[in-house]
Amino acid sequence: MSEKKFPISKERLEEIIKVFPTPFHIYDEKAIRQNMRRLCKAFSWAPQFREHFAVKATPNPTIISMLREEGAGTDCSSLAELFISEEAGVKGERIMLTSNDTPADEFQKARELGAIINLDDISHIDYLEKHAGLPDCLCFRYNPGRLIKGNDIIGQPEEAKYGLTREQLFEAYRITLDKGVRRFGLHTMVISNELHADSFINTARLMFHLAVELKDKLGIKLEFVDLGGGVGIPYRTEEEPVDLEYVGEGVHKAYQEIIEPAGLGSMAIALELGRAITGPYGWLVSTVLHEKKTYKDYIGLDSCMANLMRPAMYGAYHHITIMGKENDPCEHVYDVTGSLCENNDKFAIDRALPKIDIGDRLVIHDTGAHGHAMGFNYNGKLRSAELLLCEDGSVKLIRRAETLDDYFATLHFEPKVLK
Amino acid sequence: MSEKKFPISKERLEEIIKVFPTPFHIYDEKAIRQNMRRLCKAFSWAPQFREHFAVKATPNPTIISMLREEGAGTDCSSLAELFISEEAGVKGERIMLTSNDTPADEFQKARELGAIINLDDISHIDYLEKHAGLPDCLCFRYNPGRLIKGNDIIGQPEEAKYGLTREQLFEAYRITLDKGVRRFGLHTMVISNELHADSFINTARLMFHLAVELKDKLGIKLEFVDLGGGVGIPYRTEEEPVDLEYVGEGVHKAYQEIIEPAGLGSMAIALELGRAITGPYGWLVSTVLHEKKTYKDYIGLDSCMANLMRPAMYGAYHHITIMGKENDPCEHVYDVTGSLCENNDKFAIDRALPKIDIGDRLVIHDTGAHGHAMGFNYNGKLRSAELLLCEDGSVKLIRRAETLDDYFATLHFEPKVLK
Repeated sequence: MSEKKFPISKERLEEIIKVFPTPFHIYDEKAIRQNMRRLCKAFSWAPQFREHFAVKATPNPTIISMLREEGAGTDCSSLAELFISEEAGVKGERIMLTSNDTPADEFQKARELGAIINLDDISHIDYLEKHAGLPDCLCFRYNPGRLIKGNDIIGQPEEAKYGLTREQLFEAYRITLDKGVRRFGLHTMVISNELHADSFINTARLMFHLAVELKDKLGIKLEFVDLGGGVGIPYRTEEEPVDLEYVGEGVHKAYQEIIEPAGLGSMAIALELGRAITGPYGWLVSTVLHEKKTYKDYIGLDSCMANLMRPAMYGAYHHITIMGKENDPCEHVYDVTGSLCENNDKFAIDRALPKIDIGDRLVIHDTGAHGHAMGFNYNGKLRSAELLLCEDGSVKLIRRAETLDDYFATLHFEPKVLK
Repeated sequence: MSEKKFPISKERLEEIIKVFPTPFHIYDEKAIRQNMRRLCKAFSWAPQFREHFAVKATPNPTIISMLREEGAGTDCSSLAELFISEEAGVKGERIMLTSNDTPADEFQKARELGAIINLDDISHIDYLEKHAGLPDCLCFRYNPGRLIKGNDIIGQPEEAKYGLTREQLFEAYRITLDKGVRRFGLHTMVISNELHADSFINTARLMFHLAVELKDKLGIKLEFVDLGGGVGIPYRTEEEPVDLEYVGEGVHKAYQEIIEPAGLGSMAIALELGRAITGPYGWLVSTVLHEKKTYKDYIGLDSCMANLMRPAMYGAYHHITIMGKENDPCEHVYDVTGSLCENNDKFAIDRALPKIDIGDRLVIHDTGAHGHAMGFNYNGKLRSAELLLCEDGSVKLIRRAETLDDYFATLHFEPKVLK
């Protein structure tokens, strides 16, 4: 069981809403910092541990900067995310570019920042060399194919567009060794939103054996192995969170068994968790605008899938709390909807909840990752603000809400015609 | 069979790309205008015919303005879409607000513009009266429940969040009659992206019978019946387009049989087609950046699901042409991918295509509706430009590409803290 808490009282929330109208996402600074510290502690046995926070989860420079203070770097998948890292004060090899189908400008910006470049394909060696030059340190993304079973979210590795095959991996290290690269990392990411702790330990074992083989066959002493992300969170109360300490210990044991005897005992461990760091510590706060009773009972919010896509896109469950009714019996069954002209714009379908009244504040849990980040402007809907509940109890705007001016920004420009 | 044509030669496309780099969506002015004229002609038998173009499909003021010149108005589902209508010069009752879970500001703006308001729920009567006042003319959205079978895309009407039940509908007209409203419309929209022409005729019959019943029971002579949209397009070459003339004739016959004998012969017919008007006349043009061979063969484009979400979100098929290789045999099987760090960011899976080379220009068909409009900024990806191939052959920028400044716009603002 995982408890669904919201760190703000009803009274305080009303004060906040007077200053920052709904809808908004709000993140809990203290909980995020503590969580990051917990992760670092679980891997403190490693000679060096690096968390490259997956920027795509919560691409807000304030959040990234906070995580940087706790020791995290970033994992970027685009040019914009490299710029976010820069703005958040993340520097040099604390930044990793794990991109696929990568355009030249991403490689160029990554080189300018001194970031670690994680190549997704063997053909990217020449492309990188041509467009940005080869860096001192290179990493390759491994796709283990049939050797690892993926999950429903990321799919089976053999069907995934990411990474190099085993044969390509050895060839890629050989080619880049010949080209003078001397520092290397190894990366994989085979799973997404996974709750089974052992799957991460199994991946580590596979990667460690590969690290040893790279040493034996090519004489490469990897500087780091990046085990990727994919640690899920319990969106449903009946689910259990991943025990990070258990994962840390399991990976430690594998390290002692495989890495240390091979003389690779200075190798760093890297992760690129996103969801597991911030996911549970963000909430979408909305106000009930309408109640509608037709063939079903509908509650209409002032937010929509522009603010949170996961339920509509993946059928994902997000827990819902009605402020002030936390202990009321769940005696009503509702579809909780947004205002998009898409019938899948529903935050919950057939959900048992306490009786809801117009004006109630609804808190949608676990929006701290892949929440605001995935919003679109379909139907002309605007994306909401993001707030931070600071450690001292104050509340800070960390992203303003979109306005109609933002929406129209790409429509007003100097005329340009090709005759 | 439907043929997939692209109205621009390889040579001309290269000239265009020199001025407007890929990726971009490009729309064919001439074809869109002709298509709109064809629709008007198919319904020219009606005492009055109104097409309220579904702005959500292609929310670009230049396109909307073009359609206005051909006689179309707009159907809006949000505040931003009302503003787009205004910017495109669409006036008064040529604008319709068909919104659900509607906030007060949408009703207020609709009233300010003199738009027709289409209420989605019986509770919205009071809400509208309170927040914006009741207009002269009101329309209600009917949800026929079990009386009509929906399709996979919009779902069954009974499961849909839209519209009033039959009982509510009669009550709503009664209430608003009592409140002094004198001009009425009736609306439904039960189907989405449907290719069976008869389903539209069947819907018309059902609505016409209801119109007669409203006259008989409440003495209301409806000014118009809006049959909604939902006319699909043949994304696959083996599919047939909806025969608009056949639909027009079928609806005409139903009108003669049901409406005219009831003395309602001045009633206007309204539609809110979106996809069927612009969908086939837009294309996403991309350049091939990478070819990758691992467990499958991948072609990596310079666009991604930020530019076109339908394949990733719905598994939708979009036809692909390689410029200059239109007649080459389709002897290669590729996954055509974008650069998002989501494995579903693929424009095509296991697609047989001619041999593709890096630098080739790929044309993705049928992006004229729900293409650019659905784009998001996930992974820090930017949305592309939109171009118009004008009737005189010139090419005009009608939406500029997003920049990093746009992406960062909501992150730079005056600090705001609640202590």
